[in-house]
Amino acid sequence: MTQLSPTLELASDLIGRPSVTPEDAGCQELMISRLEALGFKIERLPFAEVTNFWARRGDTGPVFCFAGHTDVVPTGPEEQWQFPPFEPRIEEGYLCGRGAADMKGSLAAFVTAVERFVEHHPTHKGSIALLITSDEEGPFINGTTRVIDHLEARNEKIDWCIVGEPSSTEKVGDIIKNGRRGSLSGTLKVRGIQGHVAYPHLVRNPIHEAAPALAELSATVWDAGNDFFPPTSFQISNIHAGTGATNVVPGEVDIAFNFRFSTEVTADELKVRVRDILDKHGLEWDIDWILSGNPFLTPAGDLVDASREAIKTIMGYDTELSTSGGTSDGRFIAPTGAQVVELGPVNATIHKINERVRASDLDDLSALYENILARLLVDA
Amino acid sequence: MTQLSPTLELASDLIGRPSVTPEDAGCQELMISRLEALGFKIERLPFAEVTNFWARRGDTGPVFCFAGHTDVVPTGPEEQWQFPPFEPRIEEGYLCGRGAADMKGSLAAFVTAVERFVEHHPTHKGSIALLITSDEEGPFINGTTRVIDHLEARNEKIDWCIVGEPSSTEKVGDIIKNGRRGSLSGTLKVRGIQGHVAYPHLVRNPIHEAAPALAELSATVWDAGNDFFPPTSFQISNIHAGTGATNVVPGEVDIAFNFRFSTEVTADELKVRVRDILDKHGLEWDIDWILSGNPFLTPAGDLVDASREAIKTIMGYDTELSTSGGTSDGRFIAPTGAQVVELGPVNATIHKINERVRASDLDDLSALYENILARLLVDA
Repeated sequence: MTQLSPTLELASDLIGRPSVTPEDAGCQELMISRLEALGFKIERLPFAEVTNFWARRGDTGPVFCFAGHTDVVPTGPEEQWQFPPFEPRIEEGYLCGRGAADMKGSLAAFVTAVERFVEHHPTHKGSIALLITSDEEGPFINGTTRVIDHLEARNEKIDWCIVGEPSSTEKVGDIIKNGRRGSLSGTLKVRGIQGHVAYPHLVRNPIHEAAPALAELSATVWDAGNDFFPPTSFQISNIHAGTGATNVVPGEVDIAFNFRFSTEVTADELKVRVRDILDKHGLEWDIDWILSGNPFLTPAGDLVDASREAIKTIMGYDTELSTSGGTSDGRFIAPTGAQVVELGPVNATIHKINERVRASDLDDLSALYENILARLLVDA
Repeated sequence: MTQLSPTLELASDLIGRPSVTPEDAGCQELMISRLEALGFKIERLPFAEVTNFWARRGDTGPVFCFAGHTDVVPTGPEEQWQFPPFEPRIEEGYLCGRGAADMKGSLAAFVTAVERFVEHHPTHKGSIALLITSDEEGPFINGTTRVIDHLEARNEKIDWCIVGEPSSTEKVGDIIKNGRRGSLSGTLKVRGIQGHVAYPHLVRNPIHEAAPALAELSATVWDAGNDFFPPTSFQISNIHAGTGATNVVPGEVDIAFNFRFSTEVTADELKVRVRDILDKHGLEWDIDWILSGNPFLTPAGDLVDASREAIKTIMGYDTELSTSGGTSDGRFIAPTGAQVVELGPVNATIHKINERVRASDLDDLSALYENILARLLVDA
């Protein structure tokens, strides 16, 4: 391993710790030991089975934060991997192992970027912070959201936040996410009256009654999106009714659905519109709602500008702003008023077998993070 | 048991043989021994695991046939029964036990009616026959339909057939079934393209695509019925899509449905109309069809007249003709050209725990069967 760059060496060290969510497996202590050496003040914030820490170097604002997670998703069938998922290695220019892309590579790049930056700018302005959890891939109850609550309780604010999620699609920095859609899920039950198919006058078929309402929900245009968000989308993921007996009309049908929604609507507005459609069709229904996150957006500003310019300077190309894709812990940070951007490696292999990331991409990523820090925390 | 009438005694003897479908448990041999004593010629016609027989007394037409089954449905949880289901007993005027109503009571009434009729009319005209299976409650593959095939192959025809199914609702003979709706089932698969709910432009949600088609199928008026049949009905019994994961749009949805159809449409017409609706909505679909039976109808004629008059004479009230309810083996007999009527005891407890039938009803039923025989096989 003597040939590896400091970023690849640290990334390998992190991948070797099998931190399947919500385990941390010592990853955070490894990061902490490096940060303490730079003068960071560390706050360990474990909640239930989740390991978290908040690290800060400096007492004044503005506060620049790197946010990320040490936990990884399960490996799936290990025999399908071309290499043991927790024995990191470089093969054909790729760093291989579970978490290489999501997101131990980013964590290593955070640390090495900060190390070089502090070496060159020991008296930078403002503060550098890291918010690290072991609960991003899990139920996200005792992770970032709890740390944010803790900071909010003492009115400690983040001004700029880079989340290390793998935002890139072809090459590092080709896409950065400056927002995410909201996610609102519902489990809908529509009730009818069970009975024998041969006696249709005695039943009320909940599938028949639900069908036109589902057709209308599927066809509804919820909004047109805007410059930053695609139109709000509605998808039914599951529908189940019937016991398998083909001569019995079931008494109820269960339906699970999800909205990914833009800033053009609110979760409450979507709930009302769904309710109105179900009522219009005369259904006997109830819904359990789960709001996983409201949409957030960081429009043009210091952080987006610094990120764009850093990518242009280091990588030589323009980046693209996007709000597509799944949720991230950015949804917990943005509501505090922080500017939030997701910038990380290429996401092609995340959550899959044979997860890997181009080794040189992690060095580029570390250089990008350092460049962004310099643009925001060093006076011109 | 010395107090019991011959019909109740034979019914009890049959109930005591636990002939859960497709078992016969010796019921048919018991019937055969009684019929042989009357001069019936017996043909045992076992097919696979199913026991069947054809018995005939006489070589000339017209042929009057009693049709029925010795098999019964399973008991369900025996501990919920107030009495052991295969230990027949009279309680509060009711003969109790699995099969008392469906249809060992009818089988006993067949035999005792024939015994009395032959005693009084040893040289009756035409022929008396019995067609008995142990497969009416099962898959109905190796039962009545096979016996009919056997008879058809040698061009042996039934002119009049009484099926002993429990047709009555309040009192014996208040309703007779002079036909049954057809039953056509389909299992429909609608295909889409699976994917993540967060990337709606990459999926084609088969639930969304199916919903308007299901709404149209549910709302379609297939026909208006006629004097003998209620309108054709369509019911979806099962719908399933999704693996339980709420962030995945499933690749397909499976739907089971059933038509109960009148003589105003054919199964082929229904198939075409369903296909047209699915195609109109642009679905990618396939269907496996099962035609359980075409509708049949025995309008006014010798058998219906004789049944009506017998009920009026013996019971003192008018009967009602009906084609409602589930299927019966009549669907296999009617297509040969036979007139078919279902006439049996009250169906309130069939297939349920604590199955029972009013004891005196079985004696009335035996008298009805004898009276019908006399009207059709004795010259005025």
